[in-house]
Amino acid sequence: MAKEITSRSENYSQWYNDIVKKAGLADNSAVRGCMVIKPLGFGIWENMKAQLDTMFKDTGHVNAYFPLFIPKSFLSKEAKHVEGFAKECAVVTHHRLMNNPDGEGVVVDPTSKLEEELIVRPTSETIIWNTYRDWIQSYRDLPLLINQWANVVRWEMRTRPFLRTAEFLWQEGHTAHATKQEAIEEAELIHEVYARFAEDYMAMPVLKGAKTANERFAGADETFTIEALMQDGKALQAGTSHFLGQNFAKAFDVKFSDNNNKQEYVWATSWGVSTRLVGGLIMTHSDDEGLVIPPKLAPTQVVIVPIPKPNEQILEVAEKLEKQLKAAGIRIKIDRDEQKRPGFKFAQYEMEGVPIRVGIGMRDLEKNQVEVARRDTKEKISVAVEGLDRYLIDLLDTIQKNLFQKALDYRTAHSSETTDFEAFKDILENKGGFIRAHWDGTTETELKIKELTKATIRCIPLDEGPSDGKCILTGKDSKQRVVFAKSY
Amino acid sequence: MAKEITSRSENYSQWYNDIVKKAGLADNSAVRGCMVIKPLGFGIWENMKAQLDTMFKDTGHVNAYFPLFIPKSFLSKEAKHVEGFAKECAVVTHHRLMNNPDGEGVVVDPTSKLEEELIVRPTSETIIWNTYRDWIQSYRDLPLLINQWANVVRWEMRTRPFLRTAEFLWQEGHTAHATKQEAIEEAELIHEVYARFAEDYMAMPVLKGAKTANERFAGADETFTIEALMQDGKALQAGTSHFLGQNFAKAFDVKFSDNNNKQEYVWATSWGVSTRLVGGLIMTHSDDEGLVIPPKLAPTQVVIVPIPKPNEQILEVAEKLEKQLKAAGIRIKIDRDEQKRPGFKFAQYEMEGVPIRVGIGMRDLEKNQVEVARRDTKEKISVAVEGLDRYLIDLLDTIQKNLFQKALDYRTAHSSETTDFEAFKDILENKGGFIRAHWDGTTETELKIKELTKATIRCIPLDEGPSDGKCILTGKDSKQRVVFAKSY
Repeated sequence: MAKEITSRSENYSQWYNDIVKKAGLADNSAVRGCMVIKPLGFGIWENMKAQLDTMFKDTGHVNAYFPLFIPKSFLSKEAKHVEGFAKECAVVTHHRLMNNPDGEGVVVDPTSKLEEELIVRPTSETIIWNTYRDWIQSYRDLPLLINQWANVVRWEMRTRPFLRTAEFLWQEGHTAHATKQEAIEEAELIHEVYARFAEDYMAMPVLKGAKTANERFAGADETFTIEALMQDGKALQAGTSHFLGQNFAKAFDVKFSDNNNKQEYVWATSWGVSTRLVGGLIMTHSDDEGLVIPPKLAPTQVVIVPIPKPNEQILEVAEKLEKQLKAAGIRIKIDRDEQKRPGFKFAQYEMEGVPIRVGIGMRDLEKNQVEVARRDTKEKISVAVEGLDRYLIDLLDTIQKNLFQKALDYRTAHSSETTDFEAFKDILENKGGFIRAHWDGTTETELKIKELTKATIRCIPLDEGPSDGKCILTGKDSKQRVVFAKSY
Repeated sequence: MAKEITSRSENYSQWYNDIVKKAGLADNSAVRGCMVIKPLGFGIWENMKAQLDTMFKDTGHVNAYFPLFIPKSFLSKEAKHVEGFAKECAVVTHHRLMNNPDGEGVVVDPTSKLEEELIVRPTSETIIWNTYRDWIQSYRDLPLLINQWANVVRWEMRTRPFLRTAEFLWQEGHTAHATKQEAIEEAELIHEVYARFAEDYMAMPVLKGAKTANERFAGADETFTIEALMQDGKALQAGTSHFLGQNFAKAFDVKFSDNNNKQEYVWATSWGVSTRLVGGLIMTHSDDEGLVIPPKLAPTQVVIVPIPKPNEQILEVAEKLEKQLKAAGIRIKIDRDEQKRPGFKFAQYEMEGVPIRVGIGMRDLEKNQVEVARRDTKEKISVAVEGLDRYLIDLLDTIQKNLFQKALDYRTAHSSETTDFEAFKDILENKGGFIRAHWDGTTETELKIKELTKATIRCIPLDEGPSDGKCILTGKDSKQRVVFAKSY
């Protein structure tokens, strides 16, 4: 199986597509730009969702659900929003099909034309703030801390499974606050939640920072981002949290009476992560043998393979272990198939990224041991049956940490800083990764650098404060270094 | 608050709408026929979803995700399917908006017309079977046991929150099998899962049966249904499971080679329940004071209200109880608000259907007791602080059982049988409920009865076998009694 995968060094982009296909993560569909998320890919997303949902609820948020459709006129109510958004989108114009009067099949019934076209939501700020107007009268109705899990559609021209698809799954939080300060703190809180999720669960180190005005969400006053580094040296924007000021409250006339009975516009945030994270996970950890999944998000964490096939004695040991590990909350599976050879199964589980494989054969059992194989390092170790459950639980933890450390080491090795534009271009060309450099703060320079190098400002990093310097391109005064990279 | 609700006896339909609104379950949206599901309504759906998802996984199913859009031509591939379905649907014809050249706002870009229109899925058989063609080659690829949680759109003219909305949330299972027998068993298994969920979790008794040919899902060879009875004597179809024969396999040319290397068409099932269940839950248990939620699905199962407001001593008892109950997996909340009066809070939690309210006041505490109020019976009992956690856990169980029994008693009292058409009409007119009667087995008679009485055949019940009799309308020979009712 592994032979069917293109190596990363040969063609990184093809390697990614091969993994998605061969590991059974997603499939193309009959609809342009839309993918089918297969059970393994969806299993990873489900685990991500469950963990994020817990983190949102632990920080006081509740879930709700808003309509799929947005009246066209809503999209133009917030000026910047419509500029940056919702041009490439799916437009519903009719609501009925009829039998084709001239032949076979069905056609659109021309009499069913909608008075106002409906847009399949590309994001839900407009429909939600139109609803919040009815929900918010007084400061007692605030804050509103609402999240929704939903599908959204953006008519992308160039799509890639998980990373950029016309339809994708995501969560979008939309909160309403009485004060500016509280809304900013909410956006920062979620920024922190996203970073914690990426690092602690996806084992994917992220840079935290703010976007430049040019890279901000359309309609936001401030956008916080987490930026990860993929194995080809390109950055992936993995999650964003926006402070929206009073922009949407003003566009949709959402006011509240404060405790002095004064009418004020409401302050807002919105924030989201999507199935793009599955793409980030694949690209951060996988290798030339297939998918690698961090244990905390793996649909199957441990697989037991009887060697050469199941018998009573082997199954007795396997089922005892299964029971122990299930009780400890571990997702374990016994491969009971009697047809396929162990070698075939090993290759398959390697391809599918199962963190630990336990091989149980009669020869090992005579010595009261089994063979434990780690997906991350591909090490094989003989381990005593006695205490095996504890060993495996610890090993899952070790693998989780190892994957994070490996990704962090990669990022460290691919983080540069420079004050020289020729060196800057050379790093981008030959090494890739994040480059910290001074920038004069203008959109003009930012766009010029992008034009010359394809690199964009990923963020104004939170981990370093202001410092005086000269812009890498113009030589003008700069007050702050920013992080550049090529990106997805 | 309670006064704001219309009573059931006065106007059942208005009572339902009042509960939905006043309890904060759902709200109208700016889009015709689409509702906003508010946090309480969504919380109930989330609990339903979690339980159903567990039951599906325990019976070997996995989740996946298929596209929102279906190419128009797919809908006409299965002849009956297109007849019964997908006429009233949302049609996407364009993929871009542009600034209005003649003025403000945005308009549809006429150059972005799609070559083939896309339909927002009303159900996903067609797109899924088109995908299964690539996934199924051999008997080794079968069975495929896949479910998806998704939104679907049917352009309904008359909508009611939860019961019938243009967009709704649901799960749809789509399975593929090598034999007819296995597919029928799958449809029956899910039928059983649905019934168990309805009765054990929703505390909603259901009749299990098969649909008549006329009431079957468009494209199915057999439809199994669970039918519940609402408090106005009308039936609610709560979940259906379909044996699809080889209809979709033939329409989409999905064949497999069996173990003799012979090419055969694949056998199929599909099955679904939706946010309609939330409507069923509301209508089964709620009363003139507001919503009543069965404990197993209640977002908040126990609420603690300090009387008249929180102080250190009260909170000490409350927090200890909270800790104990949380450890036992109970969803509990302490009302820490200091502004509102207890009476106001009581009315609010009654309206929102929280199963148990625990009032803790200083006078009670001196006697080492608290006041426990049941939402279902509205009883108030003084209970000792010592052992309170155990008492409440048992009480939740008692309430769950009581709600089921009450609903079952209602159904028993509203189940009739008759051999006389005048009596049949009289029961429908004055008492409502399920009526068992003989029917001659023709669609013609079925439709005639519907025309005359508005009653439909809810199901051919599984709980009684064939019996000889005369059709209630035509007097012709009948081999089986069926269950009639007016329905939602």
